[in-house]
Amino acid sequence: MYPAAVALGIRLRVLAGSTAESAARVVPEPVLGDCRDAAVLAAFAQLSDVLTVADAQVSVAALEKLEADGVVVRPSPAALAYVQDPSVAMRRRLTEFGEEVAGHEAGQGVARRRELAALVARSPSGQGAAWPVAERVRVAGTGDEVIAPAPGLDPALAARATEVALRIAGELGVVGVLAVELSEVVDPSTELDGTASVVVDDLAMRPHDAGRWTVDGAVTSQFEQHLRAVLDLPLGDPRPRAPWSVTVDVLGCDYPDLYRSYLHVMAHDPGVKVHLYGKDVSPGTVVGHVTVCGEDLDDVRARARHAADFIAGVIDK
Amino acid sequence: MYPAAVALGIRLRVLAGSTAESAARVVPEPVLGDCRDAAVLAAFAQLSDVLTVADAQVSVAALEKLEADGVVVRPSPAALAYVQDPSVAMRRRLTEFGEEVAGHEAGQGVARRRELAALVARSPSGQGAAWPVAERVRVAGTGDEVIAPAPGLDPALAARATEVALRIAGELGVVGVLAVELSEVVDPSTELDGTASVVVDDLAMRPHDAGRWTVDGAVTSQFEQHLRAVLDLPLGDPRPRAPWSVTVDVLGCDYPDLYRSYLHVMAHDPGVKVHLYGKDVSPGTVVGHVTVCGEDLDDVRARARHAADFIAGVIDK
Repeated sequence: MYPAAVALGIRLRVLAGSTAESAARVVPEPVLGDCRDAAVLAAFAQLSDVLTVADAQVSVAALEKLEADGVVVRPSPAALAYVQDPSVAMRRRLTEFGEEVAGHEAGQGVARRRELAALVARSPSGQGAAWPVAERVRVAGTGDEVIAPAPGLDPALAARATEVALRIAGELGVVGVLAVELSEVVDPSTELDGTASVVVDDLAMRPHDAGRWTVDGAVTSQFEQHLRAVLDLPLGDPRPRAPWSVTVDVLGCDYPDLYRSYLHVMAHDPGVKVHLYGKDVSPGTVVGHVTVCGEDLDDVRARARHAADFIAGVIDK
Repeated sequence: MYPAAVALGIRLRVLAGSTAESAARVVPEPVLGDCRDAAVLAAFAQLSDVLTVADAQVSVAALEKLEADGVVVRPSPAALAYVQDPSVAMRRRLTEFGEEVAGHEAGQGVARRRELAALVARSPSGQGAAWPVAERVRVAGTGDEVIAPAPGLDPALAARATEVALRIAGELGVVGVLAVELSEVVDPSTELDGTASVVVDDLAMRPHDAGRWTVDGAVTSQFEQHLRAVLDLPLGDPRPRAPWSVTVDVLGCDYPDLYRSYLHVMAHDPGVKVHLYGKDVSPGTVVGHVTVCGEDLDDVRARARHAADFIAGVIDK
């Protein structure tokens, strides 16, 4: 989020667990402390006009106390409560206003086709903005892939997924970015005529993995949009800059030094956008991602996959 | 340059004159000191693998001493010497390898049409990359405008300007971004048949005002490219992301608080990219810029101009 804050001239302060965390390495004068400690959180909140939360470990009760004391918390603790106890509160609330939620009840006998993500933002005044619905492809042993927009998605279903996400944002009073993870499903009773629908799998009220493509691929990134929303600035244009954007996770590998593969990837394809998180490299953890944008989906996917797999050592050096 | 460094996972340290400078506000742990002081510079150079210079006040003699002591300085002091004494050394050297340089000799009787900027980058191994040639439009009483690519520029002349810039980069041994400011001119003897040519006005060996459009408008920005070049990483794709990009300077105005006009501009046009430098606002200084990218040049220019003029108070609020 920091590069977006720099461009907008917004001062960003960060509370981090240790100097080893990526955010503490990047943002000046990080405050170090345990975000689960109410006193630490209260002292940190005094430094800023608005407090926003990117860590699910922060206590909603502590945030409610801060809000009662006059701290502006966005999204609000009342909204965050739905994602921190998704198994109970969120499912009950979504069901109340008529959304189908994946679970023991709704999931029975339904054929799951693929994972989708509807990414939207909402400002305190209720302005909403939606990026194109993306598809997430999980690949065992290598980095996950996010494709925006989701290839071949029925426009009516894309509109439905976006409407679901904007509706959830409004109903739960979300401020900032909301990522709604969905499944495209086909009910066996309608499978023959191919009628698909979407069910909600999970929510996240912050910039999300499924929206990292927006940094290179959209006019306004999810990080800039989150800042605009929580600061009650007008939202930016979420439209894509290119027909296709593909982001692939870079996994840590047995080679702790990524430098040589990084050189290769840059030399091999000057159009790949490489993002490394400055973490210590260990096998299997996500240490960065690559994004490729372009006109031809097969080309864009192949280039992003090659770059991520090469850095991660999946392709033998 | 810092947002580009964050994405690439590169650690950037900055030497700044005071905490009031934009760079010192943005980059963690700035070192404060006078960059004209050789001892300050020598101590700072010990912190990094590569030293690059964005301030024309740095002494070339001090950089030569550091280089002799084994510090990697890019671009080299030998190259920087050409821009620090442009009236003598640069003009002599350019004339030696056959470039026409604007000045008392070459400028006589030549009709100047417009200002162009050829922005290129060169790596230590000699790899070069060129962005499209841009036009700079100076507007009295309001912010300057840069249009990329230069509208209606004869493709042969654009190729010639790019060739001149790449040739200068090679001949002078530039590493990093080189901005070549040129004039499109018509010799009176050839004016009737419309034959135009370019002459070199000035050089800058760093990311340059004429290249700020690349942050939003090119696959690889001038800041990322400068980092890649000085660190001897392969260069990125300089191609534009949209047919037209227009950047307009935002000037400081009598209202020290830009907040209200910033809100208006964001609400009026969600596609404008606003960049504020975090400087104290005083009338007439450049405090930021806006960039708009798109398909239609007239539309893109009008939107960028409106946004910059509104923030600067040129349009009455």
